[in-house]
Amino acid sequence: MDESSLSSSSNKTAEVDVPLHSIGFEIDELTPHRVTGYLRIHKTICQPFKVLHGGVSALVAESLASIGAHMASGFRRVAGIHLTINHLKPAELGDLVFAEAFPVNVGKTIQVWEVQLWKIHPANSDMKSMVSSSRVTLLSNMPVPQSSKDAADNLKKFAKL
Amino acid sequence: MDESSLSSSSNKTAEVDVPLHSIGFEIDELTPHRVTGYLRIHKTICQPFKVLHGGVSALVAESLASIGAHMASGFRRVAGIHLTINHLKPAELGDLVFAEAFPVNVGKTIQVWEVQLWKIHPANSDMKSMVSSSRVTLLSNMPVPQSSKDAADNLKKFAKL
Amino acid sequence: MDESSLSSSSNKTAEVDVPLHSIGFEIDELTPHRVTGYLRIHKTICQPFKVLHGGVSALVAESLASIGAHMASGFRRVAGIHLTINHLKPAELGDLVFAEAFPVNVGKTIQVWEVQLWKIHPANSDMKSMVSSSRVTLLSNMPVPQSSKDAADNLKKFAKL
Amino acid sequence: MDESSLSSSSNKTAEVDVPLHSIGFEIDELTPHRVTGYLRIHKTICQPFKVLHGGVSALVAESLASIGAHMASGFRRVAGIHLTINHLKPAELGDLVFAEAFPVNVGKTIQVWEVQLWKIHPANSDMKSMVSSSRVTLLSNMPVPQSSKDAADNLKKFAKL
Repeated sequence: MDESSLSSSSNKTAEVDVPLHSIGFEIDELTPHRVTGYLRIHKTICQPFKVLHGGVSALVAESLASIGAHMASGFRRVAGIHLTINHLKPAELGDLVFAEAFPVNVGKTIQVWEVQLWKIHPANSDMKSMVSSSRVTLLSNMPVPQSSKDAADNLKKFAKL
Repeated sequence: MDESSLSSSSNKTAEVDVPLHSIGFEIDELTPHRVTGYLRIHKTICQPFKVLHGGVSALVAESLASIGAHMASGFRRVAGIHLTINHLKPAELGDLVFAEAFPVNVGKTIQVWEVQLWKIHPANSDMKSMVSSSRVTLLSNMPVPQSSKDAADNLKKFAKL
Repeated sequence: MDESSLSSSSNKTAEVDVPLHSIGFEIDELTPHRVTGYLRIHKTICQPFKVLHGGVSALVAESLASIGAHMASGFRRVAGIHLTINHLKPAELGDLVFAEAFPVNVGKTIQVWEVQLWKIHPANSDMKSMVSSSRVTLLSNMPVPQSSKDAADNLKKFAKL
Repeated sequence: MDESSLSSSSNKTAEVDVPLHSIGFEIDELTPHRVTGYLRIHKTICQPFKVLHGGVSALVAESLASIGAHMASGFRRVAGIHLTINHLKPAELGDLVFAEAFPVNVGKTIQVWEVQLWKIHPANSDMKSMVSSSRVTLLSNMPVPQSSKDAADNLKKFAKL
């Protein structure tokens, strides 16, 4: 595998978060202050009414918040303890969704992250409407167990600190 | 495809909820009062610390609640507007997880469902510990759009009413 | 003040949780496994549509969960970090509401409590309907600061352990 | 009662939301796009560890969001169906807390409001730290029942539309 493919969004996502990669999400920005990416709505992530499955939105939120909190805690272990998500507007088959995660509060023990999904207007990428907004609460700064001491290696490779 | 394969859990899930099927979940019970199923924890649904990804738990919760609420509203359209989930205990690679959804309140406009994930002790299936507990709030009894009038067909085929 | 008045629900509540007392709530059961009590809906806890103010329901939930978690952690310090509440049915002026809190999970670091409010049917106290259901997430087992070392004294006086 | 006292924050709050007034909150701004106000932390709204009771923060959130959504729906009936709140930092006895509510999404059926509480630094009012952040989900645009047709009168008197 060469440098150029390793740096692609798709491979980056595959190495950082397997379930996130498996739904077709592509991570873009990767910093302790902001994690972003894109998701094209395809058939296998829709519910029977042909709109983005709310559980997939929740998966994106949990993933981006966990990745961000992991970086913000200096790559110590984090564990999501709570997620709350408001589904606001449907994203339909073919829509391009932009996702953005940023910290609401980074405490020593607890971090809270906000994750927003935005549907980009196909004719004008400056026009967006919010698909969902969620809050993820994470236990932070926990010791990394010996058995998972390489868990952060892939993330460190791509993070901009 | 013969009768016997159609009735298998795996195919039932594939026809009722594609994203739920894609993570390996198998629906068992399917009634307006209770929706259950099983998920064996495999590598592609784990986060880097080798435990079940919290976003996957949220996806299961959103799915089972939506399916249940869809039946409980007499197959009219439902839309999840909010999900909240507490992650309580980790489920590890290889664990078998049992999921159960039941209504907290079935109103005319709003339904609220509880969804619990339980890790089954490998040596004694009577011993379970709760992995997560979530609440899904859904708008209910909305008219089915013409373009989706067959959205409930697969569900009706398997539901016990 | 004599023994008998001290043991009344009203005084018990006043000594254990001042804001809870100020809305007219009366604590009944007080154990690490269950905290209950009653609230008669009066004018000053209603919103303009003359039903129980949702914020008052949330206050009851936060209070009962905190009291219960405080006992369940052996009177070490607890801090509510998250509350989520579904308002299900209105409770009207004059209604008697029964509240019940019990643990969903008591972990070393995190406790999660469920709190339910029930409206009691005036003609038949066996008939109840759920007014709200909430989940409170608390950080647990924290050291008690020197300045608050008597914070649990009143609670210990009334708790059944 | 003369004009000047009627226009004071305290009386405004008393006429618009009784429980909010009873905890000492004073409403400032009152528009369909933003509702704000102040709360001085006094003894009867603290929990035993002498910090602002989390249930009181939740009450403020539910109140401000309901008032805002009521205006944003053109004074039709609204009903809070869900509240979620993250308690981030303690506010201590004597602290001045600023509260701000604004809409995340104003839909025809559902509105979602964000409510933030900020502790103002006593020596420098430009320095604030977030005490809590919450999301309130409301059913909106419902018909006003005949028995409550004057429920919005006080709010209309003070609202800037």
